[in-house]
Amino acid sequence: MQARFDEVKAQVQAALDAAMAELPKGELRDAMAYATVGGKRVRAFLVMESARLHGLGDDIALPVATAVELLHAYSLVHDDLPAMDNDDLRRGMPTCHVQWSEATAILAGDALQSLAFRLLSEDAIGDPEARLRLIRAFSDAIGARGMVWGQALDIAAETALEPLDLKAVTKLQAAKTGALIRFAATAGPLITGEDPQYLDEYAKALGLAFQIVDDILDVTGDEEVTGKRVGKDSNAGKATFVSLLGLDGAQAEARRYAVAAEAALKRYGESAENLRELARFVIERDT
Amino acid sequence: MQARFDEVKAQVQAALDAAMAELPKGELRDAMAYATVGGKRVRAFLVMESARLHGLGDDIALPVATAVELLHAYSLVHDDLPAMDNDDLRRGMPTCHVQWSEATAILAGDALQSLAFRLLSEDAIGDPEARLRLIRAFSDAIGARGMVWGQALDIAAETALEPLDLKAVTKLQAAKTGALIRFAATAGPLITGEDPQYLDEYAKALGLAFQIVDDILDVTGDEEVTGKRVGKDSNAGKATFVSLLGLDGAQAEARRYAVAAEAALKRYGESAENLRELARFVIERDT
Repeated sequence: MQARFDEVKAQVQAALDAAMAELPKGELRDAMAYATVGGKRVRAFLVMESARLHGLGDDIALPVATAVELLHAYSLVHDDLPAMDNDDLRRGMPTCHVQWSEATAILAGDALQSLAFRLLSEDAIGDPEARLRLIRAFSDAIGARGMVWGQALDIAAETALEPLDLKAVTKLQAAKTGALIRFAATAGPLITGEDPQYLDEYAKALGLAFQIVDDILDVTGDEEVTGKRVGKDSNAGKATFVSLLGLDGAQAEARRYAVAAEAALKRYGESAENLRELARFVIERDT
Repeated sequence: MQARFDEVKAQVQAALDAAMAELPKGELRDAMAYATVGGKRVRAFLVMESARLHGLGDDIALPVATAVELLHAYSLVHDDLPAMDNDDLRRGMPTCHVQWSEATAILAGDALQSLAFRLLSEDAIGDPEARLRLIRAFSDAIGARGMVWGQALDIAAETALEPLDLKAVTKLQAAKTGALIRFAATAGPLITGEDPQYLDEYAKALGLAFQIVDDILDVTGDEEVTGKRVGKDSNAGKATFVSLLGLDGAQAEARRYAVAAEAALKRYGESAENLRELARFVIERDT
């Protein structure tokens, strides 16, 4: 898996660099580029492997993988803003609004979202109907019924009288982090018009495993390794998988989801080994 | 023109209501709906008339007109934020972040952008290639080479050592307000694949006339009528068309652009009368 991961990382970085090079020079472009540096590229990897499993070459999937990473970068920039999570450290560097300014961070996030849609319209992806399917699914995944909705629920929970229960936290995270992961993992069948059911089941479970480990790392993680502040959510008294299940319970739950994710890939046989390995990596990671 | 304007307004409001009704209930949706209420709908009118001039029915153009108004609403919500222009009054009501919260305003703007792209992918628009042309042009018009770029230049100008000159202000406004107006006015030929040249020339001139009058109203306008604070830009010492040309000079310049806008419509003959009237309205308006 690692070789493939490195390959995807290099391809996506080159595509990001090319997209940025076409924009007018200045602070806005610099801030956008800054926001897209680093990252694990898990979502891009999902896109590329999903496409490969459905017989699509990297050249077809690359604009989609790049769009997903642009979108993820914008979501981090806006989530880190003082009015939102107020974070000052991300990927081991000052967050975008600390490095530049709040105004520039808001604008950089806005323009990253626009650019993501631009990439989904690219000819390289092929069939126009396929591109429109991607654009529709992407909009739903990231907007007021997906990622942004989840973030709004999260913000609302901070001022709620009672902390969320497990069902509510699961629903919130399925939207906030899960929706984009599901889009990424189903990009292959979305392009070919095949049934995304198994990859969708995989992604649903993977997304929750991923988020539970995020909550665990917020308690046990090392800032030097994760590149972001630890203890933020737990100290804020926010309901997380760890506060609701305990550390051991959360670890068991993450393992359960990772096993379910692997199981969903059965019909893809050997060829889905990279995605299975990703499910194992997600619960073992320390970053 | 007024009857057509009222017709477009009603159609767009119904389409906006329908789009909102499909979203999950809650503060996010309420804030999005709040942000889209009111407004002159000049951009929607441009889309519908541009489409009509190229033989397209309102049913085809309506999702595009709605997308443009969603996008415009998001841009106002983000521009009004404390970190940006810090406005508390818009369309005669408290701005979105005053009515709700900064976090909700940021998220509502983000989700309005996603929803705009969703509408541009709708089947009603027809030919898939046409929809992809719209999506590409829209992304360019609103992102890091269009509207957001213009806003970034505007923010940067606030801390620059020297105020901008006329050339720089014109360039800035051509991006900040002009790019979306040009997209709206060329939507018809973008859909049919015809040459957008004349409508683009019209829109370029109209956009500048529109912005010059905005600068004039910032000095001479009545808050009760414009529904937003007056004197903000002029008191902030920002370079505007009025600060650079004086009130009389700015009025003459706006008239010059409106005449150029009308002239660009020559080849459309009688059928472009609504757009000609709009050019005259734009420089006579008090709101």
